[in-house]
Parts: sequence; C-alpha cells; structure tokens
Amino acid sequence: MTGKKLLLTPGPTPIPEEIQEEMAKPIMHHRTPQYREIFAEANKGLKNIFKTSADILTFTSSGTGAMEASVVNTLSKGDKAIVVRGGKFGERFAELCEAYGVGVIAIDMKWGTGPDPKVIEKTLSENKDVKAVFVNLCETSTATVYDIESIGRIVKDTPAILVVDVISGLGSDEFKMDEWHVDITVGGSQKGLMIPPGLAFCAISKKAWDLVSKSTLPKYYLDFKKYKKSVEKDDVPFTPAITLEIGLRKAIAIIEKEGVDNSIKRHTDDAEYLRSELKKMGLEIFSKSPSNAVTAAMVPQGIDGGALIKALKQKGITFAGGQAELKGKIFRIASMGAITRKDLDRGLSALKDVLKELEVKK
Amino acid sequence: MTGKKLLLTPGPTPIPEEIQEEMAKPIMHHRTPQYREIFAEANKGLKNIFKTSADILTFTSSGTGAMEASVVNTLSKGDKAIVVRGGKFGERFAELCEAYGVGVIAIDMKWGTGPDPKVIEKTLSENKDVKAVFVNLCETSTATVYDIESIGRIVKDTPAILVVDVISGLGSDEFKMDEWHVDITVGGSQKGLMIPPGLAFCAISKKAWDLVSKSTLPKYYLDFKKYKKSVEKDDVPFTPAITLEIGLRKAIAIIEKEGVDNSIKRHTDDAEYLRSELKKMGLEIFSKSPSNAVTAAMVPQGIDGGALIKALKQKGITFAGGQAELKGKIFRIASMGAITRKDLDRGLSALKDVLKELEVKK
Repeated sequence: MTGKKLLLTPGPTPIPEEIQEEMAKPIMHHRTPQYREIFAEANKGLKNIFKTSADILTFTSSGTGAMEASVVNTLSKGDKAIVVRGGKFGERFAELCEAYGVGVIAIDMKWGTGPDPKVIEKTLSENKDVKAVFVNLCETSTATVYDIESIGRIVKDTPAILVVDVISGLGSDEFKMDEWHVDITVGGSQKGLMIPPGLAFCAISKKAWDLVSKSTLPKYYLDFKKYKKSVEKDDVPFTPAITLEIGLRKAIAIIEKEGVDNSIKRHTDDAEYLRSELKKMGLEIFSKSPSNAVTAAMVPQGIDGGALIKALKQKGITFAGGQAELKGKIFRIASMGAITRKDLDRGLSALKDVLKELEVKK
Repeated sequence: MTGKKLLLTPGPTPIPEEIQEEMAKPIMHHRTPQYREIFAEANKGLKNIFKTSADILTFTSSGTGAMEASVVNTLSKGDKAIVVRGGKFGERFAELCEAYGVGVIAIDMKWGTGPDPKVIEKTLSENKDVKAVFVNLCETSTATVYDIESIGRIVKDTPAILVVDVISGLGSDEFKMDEWHVDITVGGSQKGLMIPPGLAFCAISKKAWDLVSKSTLPKYYLDFKKYKKSVEKDDVPFTPAITLEIGLRKAIAIIEKEGVDNSIKRHTDDAEYLRSELKKMGLEIFSKSPSNAVTAAMVPQGIDGGALIKALKQKGITFAGGQAELKGKIFRIASMGAITRKDLDRGLSALKDVLKELEVKK
C-alpha cells in the first residue's frame, strides 16, 4: 500500500496519465480542421462504445445537462412520460419532467432493485398517450443495473421513445443502443470514459428525431437541432470544452485498443471479484441487481457509515457514501473507467483495516 | 519569430503553463473539503475581478449557458426585455429571449459602434414594463466596448435589471459591477481568465434576486436557486468541471499577484499599442469604440480576408476572421488574458509579411 491518493468514487474517476498529458498540450482553436478531426474521431468512437449508428451530440455540461436535453427536445408541456424511479437519478428525470410541465407517471421501486419490465408494459398499455420512458442503465445511487434490453423490447412497439441514462454504466455494464431499441442515450465524460467531468452526450435515434420535430418546450443552449446542424460539419454551435474533447479522443483510443467488449468483460470480472471479496469480509451487497460500474455494500450494523468513509480517506482511499435515504447506510466502491484490479485490492485492504479499527472502537 | 504556434483569437486564449500543470494533477472528488476550499477561493477571486459583493454562481457550460441562465431565471413568458444588438452576441441575447417567449425590444446599432445611453433611457421611459436590459461589455464580434457605466446609471432608477455579458471583456476592459449598478454579470472561462472553455458564471445583485423569485420560465440545470443553495456551502448542485475550476483558482492567483487593476492597465496599454501599430501599417480600426480585449482591423481593399487568415496560419499565427455580416471584411486580434506584448509583436510582424505577400499577388 502506497500513500498515493486513490479515488474509488463513481465519478469523477482517475484520469490515466497519457490522457492528462494530451489535455495539457497548448490549447487549440475549435474552429479549425485540426479540432474538427479530433471531434469527428471522438464521435466515431462514441458510436462504437454506445453501439449505435445514431447521431451523437456533445454538450459542454454536467450529465444533468444532457438529461435535461433529452426532456426539453422531445416533449411538450402537458405531455406524459413514464419515469422509472429507483434512486436519485431516476428522481432527477422526474424532477426534470416536472420542471417543464410534463406529467410524470412514476414507476417506483424499492431502492436497490431494478424495474420489472412487465410493469412498464402494463403502464404503457394503460397510458397509450405516453410520449417517453425515462430510465437509467445503472442507477448510480443504488449501484443497480436495469434490464434495458427487455424494456427496449416493450417500448419499441409503442409510439413512446425510450431514453436511457448510461452516465455511470457506460463501459462497465453491457449496453447496445441500436440492438436494444434505445432511442436516446444520455452519457457523461467523468465515469467509464476516464476524463474529467464537463462533457455530456445524447445519441438520438430516428424515432426520437420524429418527436424532436414536434416538441414545443423552450430551449436554446441544449437545442438538439443546433447541435445536429453543426455536427454534420464536425462542429459545435457553442465554444466547446476543448481540452476535455481532446482528452476524450485519447480515452477512446485507449478503450478501442483494448476493445470495447474486452473492456466491458474486464469491468464485469473486476466487479464480480469486488463483490465476492466484500462477501468474504462478511459484508452484504446492497443491490439485488448489482452494476459492474459501482458496487454498494451495507454498512455493518453498529458501525457509523460516515466514520467509515472518513477513516478510509485518512488512508488515502475515497469511497462514496450513500445518497439521500441511503446516507450512512451503504458505501459505494467504483470499479469503472481506469480503476484497476490493483486499485480495488488496495481499497479492499484499507477497508479491512478500517472495519477492524471501527469494530474495536464499537 | 519562432515556429511555435500562437493563438491570438478572442477565446480560447493561450493557457499559461503553470495553469496547465495545476490542471494535470490527479483529479480530486468535488464533494470534499479540499475541493470546496478551491471553489471558495476561486469565487472570492471572481468577486474581486467582477468588483462585486454579489453571489457568484458557476455553471459547467459555454458562456451561452450562462447567458441563457440570465434569461430563464429572471423572466416569465410574455415579459418584455430591451436587447442592445450591435453584433453576434447581442443577437444571441435576443434569440435567447425569443426562444423563451420574452418580447424583445431591440436597440440596433451599426456594427462597430456602441449604444447611445440616451436611446436606452428613452426606450425605457416609453416601455415602463420592461423587466430587463441585456447588453454586452465587449461585443466580441465587432471588438467594440460599450459604455456600461452610463447605461447602469440609467437602468438603476427603473424597475428593470441590467444584465451585462462580460465574457470577452472581463480582465481587459474596465468593469465595476457594483459601482456601475449592474444586476447580473455573465462571464466565461476561456478569455481573460486564461483557462480552457467549459465554465461560465453569473453574479447576481439583490435587485436581480427579487426578479428571480417571480420568474416562471422553466429551468433545471441552469436554475439559479439550486446553485445559490449550494454555493452557500461552497458546493455546486451538479458534478462540476473539476479540472477547470482548479485551473481557475490558479488563474485568479496569477491575476491577483499582478493586481486586478494593474492587469487591466497592462491590457489597456497593449491594446493601444496594437491599434497604433496597425494604424502605422496603414490599416483602419473597424470599431468606433474599440475594446481592449480584442481589436478588429478592416481587411485592406483588394485583399481576400480569408486568404489573409490562412496565410497567417501557415506562419503559425491564428487571428480570428469576421463573423456573420463581417465575414471577410475584418480580422480580429485578441490581446486578452495571457497574451503578451511579445506575442502581439510576433503577430504584427507576421501580418506585415503576409500583407506584403498578398499585395504582390494582387
């Protein structure tokens, strides 16, 4: 164990040195053939990773900006949307819809479980005027992966579009936009894509574009049409986060060198290993459908969740705590992006020590 | 003249190496005391630079995101706003208002001139229901600085708020938010603040907050109230562009070391020098009220503006061309941010050579 700090949080995640170096080169102007080439390459790579041939639009924003874009570009005031709500980021989709006067039909689950596709099917058949279904691939707050493939099979035969937030799951949990009939994929930069936060993405299917043409919600900075017009010329409508885009191109090169599927396989193996090691330590995995991007374990009875996170930080290891109703009850360890098996071992070893220390104090 | 590339564009501007190094350090998590300290320091510095005691909110977005925030947080559908429209960025404010159903009373000027404060006074007195006046400090597209001080003196005695976009002018053109009675200042990261694009700011006066409480336009990602609630705890509501914020803190330290006023004085001197050298070369300055952040010169008759920019690029120097109706008619040289007198000399020398080459070809 070295004294070097280690970030095992579900975003931001560690940035590989070669990406840092790329981003630290003298800045270039974005209205140049040189930048357009970088942007085009990054977009091509994102399509490979999203497994889609759809247009990909890039926003300078947090992931929430792209989540908002998926609402304001497809819907109109008074429209109805189904929102799968099993944690903080499902709730965010609902809040976004409500902020714009979109009626929310919430499918609420016990946190830590995924939605039953049959419930979505039933809700859609009872509400034929639903325009969109909003769901997460990985609900980061509960470290739970949802069965998007089954949901896609249901939504595709209705007039509704399927919007999936893959911000934390991308690159770790399997995801196939086109094959699974996803209409809008919402992504972010600071998780599986291994670069700092500040870029967010929407990939948009033909079915979604049809809805875009009918949407009357107001928008400007997040207007899909402005970005679509620009991306056709490998350009963006507003000054982009140039250094992050340059980092993204490099990150994608790293992922493509390993192979998109190999990378997901590695993250799957790492997450399985992480869960099995936690169980060996007598810890309970919180989620009933655990994600490969981030793992949540229950804080053992009698131990203060906040103290646990704090004690780990003193050893240089940052875990994430629980959010909202899970605060103090779970802790979360990310295995996404550039986090290695060795990093996980270091985190696990520190966790073991801390649990022992806290047990003694108890 | 070295072969090193030199960016003399009005954003992005060159990033000092010490800022690059700071941003290339291992990434940290944003929900930590360490990050909150950086954020708090940067905000304190921004207040010094904006010359205000008002709240400063930080968005992960292009400058346009913060421009949009200034509209959607203060106004309601059907409200009326005065927009000073003397170039591309005045037009952007008008487009933003129109996208949200706000009625625009445009004060149009010949490009390259500033607004007559008396016209604003008259328009306000004829339209007592105007809720906001939108104006730029420096209209980047025409390299023109506006007389915000006089406009502020007029708007302060009306119920309307004064919103000023200082994205390109900040740090080069004099600006005093509180003394000049500005209610919302909209800033960006990639110009005078010497860091890459991706952060944008709104500083908000008490008068503006009163309007915020009445605004009914829909918003979520750009919602002032969410950011205000967070900034009180030195925090942000959504994952921020961490590396850029770290760069910003360093940039502010550099500016404060020189002194905010000294830095503006230096930029003023540099811009005067630039204009005088251009005039010596027989070139005409485009703007009747030239900014110290960026200087626009007329492309000499008989010379192709596009060819001029291209020939300079071949020598490693990037100037900006004209935008929209000024395309091919002007070229723009930035002197903002970390651009030095030596950089300007290199740009001027290359320009001299290129003009000679193009004259010969003519």
